[in-house]
Amino acid sequence: MAAMFNKMVIAGVGLIGGSLALDMRRLGLVKEIVGYGRREQNLRFARKKGMIDSYFLRESEMPTDVDFLMMGTPVRAIVPLTAAFLPRLKSGCIVSDVGSVKGEIVKGMEKLLPAGMHFVGAHPIAGSEQWGAEAAYMNLFKGRRCILTPTKKTNRAALKLMKHLWQRVGARVEIMNAAQHDRVLGVVSHLPHVGAFALVNVLGQIKLEGVDLKSYCAGGFKDITRIASSRPELWRDICLLNRNAVSNSLGRYIGTLQRMKRWIDKGDGRALESEFARANAIRAEMA
Amino acid sequence: MAAMFNKMVIAGVGLIGGSLALDMRRLGLVKEIVGYGRREQNLRFARKKGMIDSYFLRESEMPTDVDFLMMGTPVRAIVPLTAAFLPRLKSGCIVSDVGSVKGEIVKGMEKLLPAGMHFVGAHPIAGSEQWGAEAAYMNLFKGRRCILTPTKKTNRAALKLMKHLWQRVGARVEIMNAAQHDRVLGVVSHLPHVGAFALVNVLGQIKLEGVDLKSYCAGGFKDITRIASSRPELWRDICLLNRNAVSNSLGRYIGTLQRMKRWIDKGDGRALESEFARANAIRAEMA
Repeated sequence: MAAMFNKMVIAGVGLIGGSLALDMRRLGLVKEIVGYGRREQNLRFARKKGMIDSYFLRESEMPTDVDFLMMGTPVRAIVPLTAAFLPRLKSGCIVSDVGSVKGEIVKGMEKLLPAGMHFVGAHPIAGSEQWGAEAAYMNLFKGRRCILTPTKKTNRAALKLMKHLWQRVGARVEIMNAAQHDRVLGVVSHLPHVGAFALVNVLGQIKLEGVDLKSYCAGGFKDITRIASSRPELWRDICLLNRNAVSNSLGRYIGTLQRMKRWIDKGDGRALESEFARANAIRAEMA
Repeated sequence: MAAMFNKMVIAGVGLIGGSLALDMRRLGLVKEIVGYGRREQNLRFARKKGMIDSYFLRESEMPTDVDFLMMGTPVRAIVPLTAAFLPRLKSGCIVSDVGSVKGEIVKGMEKLLPAGMHFVGAHPIAGSEQWGAEAAYMNLFKGRRCILTPTKKTNRAALKLMKHLWQRVGARVEIMNAAQHDRVLGVVSHLPHVGAFALVNVLGQIKLEGVDLKSYCAGGFKDITRIASSRPELWRDICLLNRNAVSNSLGRYIGTLQRMKRWIDKGDGRALESEFARANAIRAEMA
């Protein structure tokens, strides 16, 4: 099997970027992988583990013969960093990303990239509260969804190539409109994160004499709020970049909680039970 | 080792009651265990698995020579069912419960029971979204907290006995004021349940054309909302019986979410990040 790419740059060699590098190398999909990032320690680790062949730390050191640029950085950096690399990108280069927000990124990239450089927005749904190259592992994407968000401007050959790439590393590729992607993720991922951060902070606010509330969280609470261990700056950016969808689902969540609180205050057991039972039924349908 | 009790009735042979029966039998802490419940199928299963020796289905069939009555039913039934058993309870009988709410139950039981019958409120923190005798297993309580909530009226010998019982089955016994218990559990357990039910219902409310939102919940969302599989009527009762504490923590949660929503709407990344970072730090301190 011939390699798909000669020279690839992965900007942000973290859980997603690092795992993709491991799989592409294992499958012979690329001849050379160069890493970019801000923390040299992380890049040194990635090189030691064979994820990348070499790395650079300054945008001006971007190699000029790259045929695939994969943006694996936090979402906010994706467009501006690509802009910084742009003078050194060659025509025909394929640019993609793995950001959890797509609308703003797709818009920004299409505005930025000149004709002859092909952007395909992607989001492999395989994140966790772990981060950095140390969290990366082979086969992370096996059986996971990878959503591609092409527009009518997207180069068809580039899209086909990206589809093929993600399928090769085991993902179930799905094509979706970027705005729709953001609404879906706003509900199933971004909202629960905000909810978990808030839940932990309520616990932090409440002071009960002589009681260390945290010590009572060994079981359920700890599991539910695992995602509140996620990186704050990363989630700040996701919330701001996907502002409309997150605000919308957060508003609905607040409304639902207010309704439940009213029923608890009024002692309306029938309404409360029917709300809980509805949740029960929906939850039971989850794959 | 002599048995602690001759004849025990467990009303509600579910996850908690059934597991306690298994352990007490294994350790020889009781000579005879009789089950009570409304679902005969469940009691038959419990008898087959050796949790109980026999069972009865009508309150009027309560044996009259019971020296330990353990109330393992949903919280709302604990006081009224004990009232129904009362005419057949003998003097010196110890009565306890395993309800997740203590204030209302302790108050109700102390009002109900005559001198010479000794109530000790207890809450082994070992519940899950599983229920029924089928969910019961040995050593469920090993290393788990069991909170006892005596009052100044509590018989000291009975308290000592209950402390001993829960220690024997492996629990870490803790003494706490009932009101304090309810405030603690209102935050670390009842609030997250309400939050999970609400989160699932938001997902149910939102309709996105051509998208089955549930199918995107395979990972994180599903884990976080596992507790929304808990029994609706049971959680309705817990919320109503612990109304003040649940309403209070729910109010704080709503307030925290409203603040976060405002920052998202305004694009105040600094405030949002500091809120997320605070959650991060608190979460990291959890044992």
